[in-house]
Amino acid sequence: MGDLLQGYRGEARAVLERAGVAVWDNVDLRTDEGTFSGLLLPRSETADDRHVVLKLANGYNLGIRASRVRELVSHGPREVHARPPRREVAVDASRPSVTLLGTGGTIASRLDYRTGGVVPAFSPEDLYASVPELAETCNLKTRALYSVLSENMGPEQWIGLAVAVAEEIRGGAEGIVIGHGTDTMQHTASVLSFMLQNPPVPIVMVGSQRSSDRPSSDAALNLIHATRAAALSDIAEVTVCMFGPTSDEYGLLHRGTRVRKMHTSYRSTFRTIADIPLAAVFSDRVLPLRTDYCPRRLDRTVTLDAVWSDRATIVYYYPAMREDIIDALVDHGYQGIVIAGTGLGHTGRSLLPALKRAVDRGVHVFMTAQTLWGYVQMHVYDTGRDLMDIGVMPANMLPEVAYMKLGWVLAHTTERSEVSRLMQTCLAHEITQREPHDGYLVLQGGLPDVDRYIKQHRI
Amino acid sequence: MGDLLQGYRGEARAVLERAGVAVWDNVDLRTDEGTFSGLLLPRSETADDRHVVLKLANGYNLGIRASRVRELVSHGPREVHARPPRREVAVDASRPSVTLLGTGGTIASRLDYRTGGVVPAFSPEDLYASVPELAETCNLKTRALYSVLSENMGPEQWIGLAVAVAEEIRGGAEGIVIGHGTDTMQHTASVLSFMLQNPPVPIVMVGSQRSSDRPSSDAALNLIHATRAAALSDIAEVTVCMFGPTSDEYGLLHRGTRVRKMHTSYRSTFRTIADIPLAAVFSDRVLPLRTDYCPRRLDRTVTLDAVWSDRATIVYYYPAMREDIIDALVDHGYQGIVIAGTGLGHTGRSLLPALKRAVDRGVHVFMTAQTLWGYVQMHVYDTGRDLMDIGVMPANMLPEVAYMKLGWVLAHTTERSEVSRLMQTCLAHEITQREPHDGYLVLQGGLPDVDRYIKQHRI
Repeated sequence: MGDLLQGYRGEARAVLERAGVAVWDNVDLRTDEGTFSGLLLPRSETADDRHVVLKLANGYNLGIRASRVRELVSHGPREVHARPPRREVAVDASRPSVTLLGTGGTIASRLDYRTGGVVPAFSPEDLYASVPELAETCNLKTRALYSVLSENMGPEQWIGLAVAVAEEIRGGAEGIVIGHGTDTMQHTASVLSFMLQNPPVPIVMVGSQRSSDRPSSDAALNLIHATRAAALSDIAEVTVCMFGPTSDEYGLLHRGTRVRKMHTSYRSTFRTIADIPLAAVFSDRVLPLRTDYCPRRLDRTVTLDAVWSDRATIVYYYPAMREDIIDALVDHGYQGIVIAGTGLGHTGRSLLPALKRAVDRGVHVFMTAQTLWGYVQMHVYDTGRDLMDIGVMPANMLPEVAYMKLGWVLAHTTERSEVSRLMQTCLAHEITQREPHDGYLVLQGGLPDVDRYIKQHRI
Repeated sequence: MGDLLQGYRGEARAVLERAGVAVWDNVDLRTDEGTFSGLLLPRSETADDRHVVLKLANGYNLGIRASRVRELVSHGPREVHARPPRREVAVDASRPSVTLLGTGGTIASRLDYRTGGVVPAFSPEDLYASVPELAETCNLKTRALYSVLSENMGPEQWIGLAVAVAEEIRGGAEGIVIGHGTDTMQHTASVLSFMLQNPPVPIVMVGSQRSSDRPSSDAALNLIHATRAAALSDIAEVTVCMFGPTSDEYGLLHRGTRVRKMHTSYRSTFRTIADIPLAAVFSDRVLPLRTDYCPRRLDRTVTLDAVWSDRATIVYYYPAMREDIIDALVDHGYQGIVIAGTGLGHTGRSLLPALKRAVDRGVHVFMTAQTLWGYVQMHVYDTGRDLMDIGVMPANMLPEVAYMKLGWVLAHTTERSEVSRLMQTCLAHEITQREPHDGYLVLQGGLPDVDRYIKQHRI
């Protein structure tokens, strides 16, 4: 049976012991703020010792400070569902081989909540048992690289991931799927777009907004769509495959340098910004929405350029920003600053002396737009021209993408003309050259190709 | 005739003198990068002396470094249109009285380009002459308070504006319109929402994305809609009235604490985030889309609370953010930090020690969501709970609004419980309690009430 209070320590464990409850019990927990009913979850080894965590009926987890628990009553253990039998699937030489790399996040939580463990069991057989559709598409190989929440992903993981992807491609993988938490999926997608250049096969990142024990989970469907895109699509770029905008009829494939998480909670949180998505992914087909992607190749070559400098930062401009914000960054040795400016790429005039000091001390300063949509145009107003005169350079990409690219560039060079040249050279479709008329906040009902396909096939 | 090279000095003036051209001439200007044709614009007294500025046929201004001009040929002066005759309009006691306060920005540029001056002539008679529709709605009074680009608006202007609005309301104005540049209109709108509490009449901010000398200008229509909303609507809040999403059929009235500029260039740039707009404004009617607004009153009382502290800042979180970013802010005396976090309100675990040091030294740290849509929920994951444990507090509002509110709050108190109480008390509809299903990226075709109205009236 193991530990009845798995993962609980200290203060939290004492409260649970006094109440005589066990993990996976259905409990009522009373606090001064109200009574909560749910399943008592086990905790990980690294969790704090102050919280009791319940899974509520709506599927969300709720952490309650142990010191606030007034009463705790168990209604006995939940019904135990047997672990689905591992499903052995013979290798079928006619199907493409796909490697699924695990990094952690909610997509891994299908097994998480079943075993109570932090590192999910992550074999092809487990996945085939949970999501049988995967076996129809490809021969799956799995590698659990990390098990971290995506907000804790950093240079070590980005570089390790890029190396692993290159290894798998060189070893014969015909598509790569990367399971990743959604919080910083866009950051990892964009840095991989620079670290892995000219890949011959699709590299598809996927996650889920709701864990698979919730009725509305997007975990299985996203995984099916991502695996299909990796195995069968012709789009050999780093992409993100997540839930479509309106229903569970299709997933959308977003370019890694163009995608952004736009809602804290919805399943359709990922959106292509200032452009349309690359493709819609149905259970039976990948429908390209653009034609300008890099096509799949048969060779096994990919340029691995996995380096990182932690000397870049983002300044999110706001009116009345004081000069000491910029001065402090220079004093702390930052070599690159991405400004998310207002309008066409502006800051207030009062920031100019500090920005000039920064540039004069060798800091590379790039301007992006905090509107997210549109493009920086620093020639239009005096403010933009004055900023360029002191050496601030336009970077027509999302602020987050400019940061990831600048961190990567500064690991290659800090020479001004070369930093400028690399930042202003489009390496992975990151630079907005022009924005299509349907690229602005019109995704809802704005994909006529997809609507037509659904209508024709009566999905 | 005045100065033929009005506003030009130094290097730029020398180039123009050599070529024998004058402002308002149609010129061809050759550089090594290409030849540009357009109208030679006059410059303001405060402009730099290095650029020659052309208005291109597409309506945009282009600044060209004087040192890059290889050849400059004049095709003679543009056709001169006579200034529209000032139109005297008698006061009609049956119409409401509205005060239009000017601060600068593109909306003022109608007169800007005509006179070549920086401070536009800004009398009711001039406005009536340019936009005759205004006279049908109200008796207009105008006050030019400032003439600054909106990125240079700051505490002095915000406080001056709030004081002027209160004076006008107390003096009998039945509606206020504020002309403002679009870059930071959302910031001014949110700070005015806190500085001017419980106003009895509408306070409507308006700007334009394209100056009125461009065929696609939104200046006149936005001004008509804003004036109508100020004069006739029942919505006594600080709002932004700008171009609707698809056409020039209507404007949208956005709550001042809910609105954000979402496109660098489009006219429909302003969007209500995580909610629907307050109203659609047609030329003949204001159509409310919500019912929970503060209604117009007949009294003349408004609580003026115009204070500001410059000790707040925004930290836009990105993965691999180093602790020295937070430490530097604390060392420089910042008393309030608004984090724009990932997902439901997270930062990487590595930032926790620095955030704890900040809180321990009395800095007030609030968490917002960089997804913009959705709401911070720090109870769901360990990361959020750990952040709350060290004293980071959720602030369920747009990052920019949290910054403007915190700057205002810190001018009242730095006592922790009081700062926390004020930040978490909804003062001007700024806190997201819940998000309607149609509040997320669905504005296009997502306003059935408006569509129905247009259909019924065959607009």
